[in-house]
Amino acid sequence: MTTTHVEPATPVDLAAIRTRVDGALEYFLRDKATATEPALPGELTGTVHDFLFAGGKRIRPLLCVLGWHAAAGEVPVPQPIVRAAASLELFHAAVLIHDDIIDNSDTRRDRPTVHRVLAQRHRDRRDPDRFGAHAAIVLGDLTMVWSAELLHTAQLTAAQLDAALTVLDGMRADVMYGQYLDLLTTARPSSDLGRALRIIRYKTVSYTCERPLQLGAVLAGAHSGVRAALTAYAGPLGEAFQLQDDLLGVYGDPARTGKSDLEDLRDGKHTALVALALEHATPAQAAQLLALLGDPELDDRQADICREILTATARHHVEAMIRTRWAQANRVLDHAPFPAAVNRALRDVADAIVSRNT
Amino acid sequence: MTTTHVEPATPVDLAAIRTRVDGALEYFLRDKATATEPALPGELTGTVHDFLFAGGKRIRPLLCVLGWHAAAGEVPVPQPIVRAAASLELFHAAVLIHDDIIDNSDTRRDRPTVHRVLAQRHRDRRDPDRFGAHAAIVLGDLTMVWSAELLHTAQLTAAQLDAALTVLDGMRADVMYGQYLDLLTTARPSSDLGRALRIIRYKTVSYTCERPLQLGAVLAGAHSGVRAALTAYAGPLGEAFQLQDDLLGVYGDPARTGKSDLEDLRDGKHTALVALALEHATPAQAAQLLALLGDPELDDRQADICREILTATARHHVEAMIRTRWAQANRVLDHAPFPAAVNRALRDVADAIVSRNT
Repeated sequence: MTTTHVEPATPVDLAAIRTRVDGALEYFLRDKATATEPALPGELTGTVHDFLFAGGKRIRPLLCVLGWHAAAGEVPVPQPIVRAAASLELFHAAVLIHDDIIDNSDTRRDRPTVHRVLAQRHRDRRDPDRFGAHAAIVLGDLTMVWSAELLHTAQLTAAQLDAALTVLDGMRADVMYGQYLDLLTTARPSSDLGRALRIIRYKTVSYTCERPLQLGAVLAGAHSGVRAALTAYAGPLGEAFQLQDDLLGVYGDPARTGKSDLEDLRDGKHTALVALALEHATPAQAAQLLALLGDPELDDRQADICREILTATARHHVEAMIRTRWAQANRVLDHAPFPAAVNRALRDVADAIVSRNT
Repeated sequence: MTTTHVEPATPVDLAAIRTRVDGALEYFLRDKATATEPALPGELTGTVHDFLFAGGKRIRPLLCVLGWHAAAGEVPVPQPIVRAAASLELFHAAVLIHDDIIDNSDTRRDRPTVHRVLAQRHRDRRDPDRFGAHAAIVLGDLTMVWSAELLHTAQLTAAQLDAALTVLDGMRADVMYGQYLDLLTTARPSSDLGRALRIIRYKTVSYTCERPLQLGAVLAGAHSGVRAALTAYAGPLGEAFQLQDDLLGVYGDPARTGKSDLEDLRDGKHTALVALALEHATPAQAAQLLALLGDPELDDRQADICREILTATARHHVEAMIRTRWAQANRVLDHAPFPAAVNRALRDVADAIVSRNT
């Protein structure tokens, strides 16, 4: 998602929210780097900082603040809400650090992944790759712990904290369920579209959209009508987001996405795109696709064969699914009890998600 | 630590506390297994359950409840306190699951480690060892998330929760700092005793002893005198615990410790034992030790050579350090403002720590 086409003059200024979220993250990490004893390796906060500020769409903090506005109205966002929103980004950094180890990814956001950075920094070790992976497990854990601390020290009221923790406990578990289901199906592509959608429900609908929106809503003491409308909007939005992600993983321009366009194919990710391809493929196409997907040595020529089959069988289905979901999300907004500016910002988010190329 | 020599009739009944903590863990995991949707792989809760109930000393929950008694007196322990204490054990399980991946350990508590269990269960995969490690990263993360949920849903008051989170944020970060320092020094043994003690301060003094005791104390609204005495007791107790652990890692009976007696030597762990050995060794002994420690192929004969050198140079120093710290912890208790039964139980804990063989 890019925020460039959002006019800074709208009452809900996504770019300004993003700047404040980044400021809260900067402040937290600077405090960690200076307040703890000198013996703490500076690479801990430094590596997390570099990773966070190499890019990232900040979609979860933005949705959290929009969820807050949905219930609180068009009023200035208090700093505790910004900090709570920022804690989502720190949690997400932890998830990505571990995810990149699992996917054996070399780059993210066009830079080396955290385990690669740590391997490179400790390249004089006997087995730097192993060291990098292990150090990144610990650094991911520490980042997760810090995300909780950022929330706990956000100066929320006791009632806000209690409500927030209920939403966050569900969100954190959902992304881990989703990661686990993803792992179970990776390298085992099948025509089971339901399974692909179940992974999306945990990893993207709940984790990326619904729970961040609900976090903001409960922090504003939202009534059930607002909460229900946010959930109704989050469902199609999250599906559209992940389906677009699946397309970008295969067809995206690595110079823009910041990651290899071979990785999803080499991993044999069980995506909706692959499930639909296997459903609609001829036996010969299906056999060829199954032979290539999940091959860790897949080369560019073989990847192009995969892309040709996916395009012939499934790409247009996925693009249609994205359009349908975009329209569903917009229909929810037609009747949602949100302030006009929030409604507008949520439409912009949906537009940005389906049109993004990063 | 064993609790067998604690008479069940003492007012602070460690065995009864342990039973209640285990009950809270059972209940939480059973609820997770049944309350979530059927699609959730049963191996998630099942694997964590098997790991938790294969053994474990439950030292952190026990110290938490003792910290609570230290401030609250000899009164029955409310269920929210038991749940908060149990959440420490779930967090510890998460730490161990990741630690076993990092140390490439095959067994813990005399059973296969979680990544080995998952590799075995998915042995029809292309690379089951890799799958097992990756699934264990996610399952460790999920266990960490669950430990937070167990605390948040423990029915603490808002004031208790707020105080608990402050202690826990520090505890969780400290163990990760300690893990990271441990990783940095592993396979790089040196005579730097200070560095070994710094790792102990994070991983064992703070994480295993001080913060669990403080968690209990703040849940009871302890005054500063109680809190200061608990910290004074935790320092030498934690050091004694880890020094004994280091001895067991090298000299322990694998049939009792449940883990290999080669692993610490093969990893080249930078322990106080090794630091003191390198300080006191002859140049020939030091050269031999440095050549062997950290050799992943170290065999039993070579391990015996390491043990001989460690015994000749450092074992008695470490044993003396343990005795000194045991005496320090007891001296703190001589003047601590704790109820008599709590004082007695904390002496029993210190005795058990220095005399344990598991």
